[in-house]
Amino acid sequence: MSNNSINFMTISELSENIREKKLSPIEIVQELLKTIKKLNPANKSFLYIAEEESIKEAHSIEKEISSGNYKGPLHGIPIGLKDLYETDNMPTTSGSVIFKDYQSNKNATSVQKLIDAGSIIIGKLNMHPFAFGAFGTNSDFGTPPNPWNTSHIPGGSSSGSGVAVASGMIPGATGSDTGGSIRIPSAVCGIVGIKPTYGRISRYGLTPLSWSLDTAGPMTRSVKDCAYMLEVMSGFDINDDSSSTKDVPQFSKAFDEETRKFTIGIPKNQYFTNIHSEVETKVNEAIETLKKLGFTVVEVDIPTPEEAGKIQTNIINPEAVAFHQDRLRNDIDRIAPDVRARLESGVFIPAVNYIQAQRLRRQFIGRMVDCMSTVDALITPTEPICSPEIGQTTTTINNEEVTIQSLLTKFTSPFNLSGLPAISVPCGFDTKGLPIGLQIVGKHFDEMTILQIAHIFESNTEWNKMKPTL
Amino acid sequence: MSNNSINFMTISELSENIREKKLSPIEIVQELLKTIKKLNPANKSFLYIAEEESIKEAHSIEKEISSGNYKGPLHGIPIGLKDLYETDNMPTTSGSVIFKDYQSNKNATSVQKLIDAGSIIIGKLNMHPFAFGAFGTNSDFGTPPNPWNTSHIPGGSSSGSGVAVASGMIPGATGSDTGGSIRIPSAVCGIVGIKPTYGRISRYGLTPLSWSLDTAGPMTRSVKDCAYMLEVMSGFDINDDSSSTKDVPQFSKAFDEETRKFTIGIPKNQYFTNIHSEVETKVNEAIETLKKLGFTVVEVDIPTPEEAGKIQTNIINPEAVAFHQDRLRNDIDRIAPDVRARLESGVFIPAVNYIQAQRLRRQFIGRMVDCMSTVDALITPTEPICSPEIGQTTTTINNEEVTIQSLLTKFTSPFNLSGLPAISVPCGFDTKGLPIGLQIVGKHFDEMTILQIAHIFESNTEWNKMKPTL
Repeated sequence: MSNNSINFMTISELSENIREKKLSPIEIVQELLKTIKKLNPANKSFLYIAEEESIKEAHSIEKEISSGNYKGPLHGIPIGLKDLYETDNMPTTSGSVIFKDYQSNKNATSVQKLIDAGSIIIGKLNMHPFAFGAFGTNSDFGTPPNPWNTSHIPGGSSSGSGVAVASGMIPGATGSDTGGSIRIPSAVCGIVGIKPTYGRISRYGLTPLSWSLDTAGPMTRSVKDCAYMLEVMSGFDINDDSSSTKDVPQFSKAFDEETRKFTIGIPKNQYFTNIHSEVETKVNEAIETLKKLGFTVVEVDIPTPEEAGKIQTNIINPEAVAFHQDRLRNDIDRIAPDVRARLESGVFIPAVNYIQAQRLRRQFIGRMVDCMSTVDALITPTEPICSPEIGQTTTTINNEEVTIQSLLTKFTSPFNLSGLPAISVPCGFDTKGLPIGLQIVGKHFDEMTILQIAHIFESNTEWNKMKPTL
Repeated sequence: MSNNSINFMTISELSENIREKKLSPIEIVQELLKTIKKLNPANKSFLYIAEEESIKEAHSIEKEISSGNYKGPLHGIPIGLKDLYETDNMPTTSGSVIFKDYQSNKNATSVQKLIDAGSIIIGKLNMHPFAFGAFGTNSDFGTPPNPWNTSHIPGGSSSGSGVAVASGMIPGATGSDTGGSIRIPSAVCGIVGIKPTYGRISRYGLTPLSWSLDTAGPMTRSVKDCAYMLEVMSGFDINDDSSSTKDVPQFSKAFDEETRKFTIGIPKNQYFTNIHSEVETKVNEAIETLKKLGFTVVEVDIPTPEEAGKIQTNIINPEAVAFHQDRLRNDIDRIAPDVRARLESGVFIPAVNYIQAQRLRRQFIGRMVDCMSTVDALITPTEPICSPEIGQTTTTINNEEVTIQSLLTKFTSPFNLSGLPAISVPCGFDTKGLPIGLQIVGKHFDEMTILQIAHIFESNTEWNKMKPTL
């Protein structure tokens, strides 16, 4: 087996090899560490490389497995953590110099679940400081460049997760998503990322951005891998107020049988206007592919991204201020300038705006649920554009100059506001070779359906087999 | 049977007479209407007297009952509604001239439940405008004077409910309680009022003051009567976000059997300092009575009223502004001056204060629950003072001048913040003949225990048999 192939193996492939004892976790960890150490000085996707810890863990796991105690598809799989997941044996910086030496005394609930399932935590991943930004840039620790074109942004806030997975440094990573922070880097780095239903995965031990909207989720190179990680990370946690007591389905079994041909709604009027034409072309091709595969596709009207944006700002910004109040008072000069500006804009939002936003949110959810009553899932582009260049602030759509900042979360944030699960899967590349993402949105707590649709699409296209030139 | 006796019969007594066909609902309604029409010009507790409607209803109910279809203890019982409970056949003013002609097209969920149980809605009751005040004064429609001494306040915001029940105009009324609005008028008018656990009774169809804290509940002249009304009014309602799916116990059966001798916690350090000495004396006598009845009494420390007050203001005021925003913009001159001032103080509260208050609230709840783990219930004075004179703004406690405004909700609002159920029962009178209330606080969704304790106390004292001179 060639070493290079380990880097781009999916979790499913690695675990099959581990289970059949063709590959040892030690070999995998060592190979990945070699790549991480080679690529990281330039791509900066890791803020902490858990070299010793992961090798030690791999040895102990190899013993477990060879003694016949095989735990399942994540056993022996190296996973990277977005650096806002607390870990009891490595620092958690939340992407900011302010926390560069912060050592938590616990593992986040979802991290502990990954460890209990046998995953090996191989390091902590770069991110937009405090997860408060969609570009994935980081003026404190450096910006991980997009592996498909290093002059372009990685997308954020889970930038390191997107870059490390896309670059074959790790098969899977955790991300968090408040306005799109899993789906944006997944789309622009050409990988798969799922933002589960609000309440599905505990956020206990994750640095909050906005309690009302924060979600945790996996980022991988295949839909199946997302399902494996999602299943392990999910479940009720008394330490997270938003945590749902709903049973966790066996997501890993989502692909065992022929699935029924779902009805997919396309919000043409709200999510296909004012987008780059190359994005439009690829997403429409994806929809045609799904039609040919037997899915029913219907047009639907759903609440607009513009509405969601206004409501969302009045929730995220003051909640972020509430959490970072101490930093704003005592350490304001060390907050990354773009994040500081965003926080400052939240300081003076009146309580009544916040309260109204929460009320409007409840109505928004109700309308979204109603609109989805006749379909099983929605499809939209994940992003209206491909990855912009680092430093680029505007782009041209339909001959109009548009601010990129508001574009990046435009199609993702409505599904934070509504709490619906949404997955981004690769569906092509633009002429510059930059990835395009397809967003599939499900009903509350129905991740199963979108995993199945995404998997069928992935299995019938070649997009997730593409690798960047590193 | 003397007519006068109907006025001061409890719901239990009336319903026994109805069931045994000794009294007809028509006779009861007519007798109460006579008293209402006699007293109301001076005591202003009714804003709408449903004369025709209630007589018509009484006739139809009498037919039902004589045909053998007896529904239970509320069948044929006249009930008054605080005028923020929407009704489809009478106006709902919320105590403000702004809504003096507002006609809803529905009954509040709890009103419909009372009607379905056979209650006769006999009218709508005065209240502090928008329920935003603890004095129970009303500059729009006049202030119902305290029946024990008409130069004193009735307490609010459910002022009309307190006065009408205490004056023998009705055996039971609905109130609502955001910071004490059921318990304050119950205590100072010498009746029984229960604020149930947050989530127990639907608020759908009640004019909101503060969604996060609003509760609905009954006010009566006996504990048993409160239990009857509570049982009927409670239950899940999909139209109220806060509504609990927990089963509703048979509160009406709370008194059927010998109850166990509960352990009662007394927060001496937090709720017995800085109170009027006559209140202290009577509440301590009540505690001695309970000891003699076999209850175990222990001292406990619980979170302070001062903490609760600060958190509460940052929640109630902006939520009230959010609901009344249109009035503040377009009709500010018609908002009662004291209420307007209170609303205006909420306009500039920053979102971050509100968010922090909601976080502190969750911690407050946690600490309160912990503190109650070793006891079955808490006892405090309902009010640190007796009813002040109308227009009086300060009082002297321990030789210090204190603002009455903050005193009135001091001991009641912590149990809105914590969501715990709390009942106020009469426990004596001061030397001026003004009633004193005993507050019994239970664990979440354990109204049963506090009803039982209150009933045992009531059955072993004479306080609820006292009547004001009218």
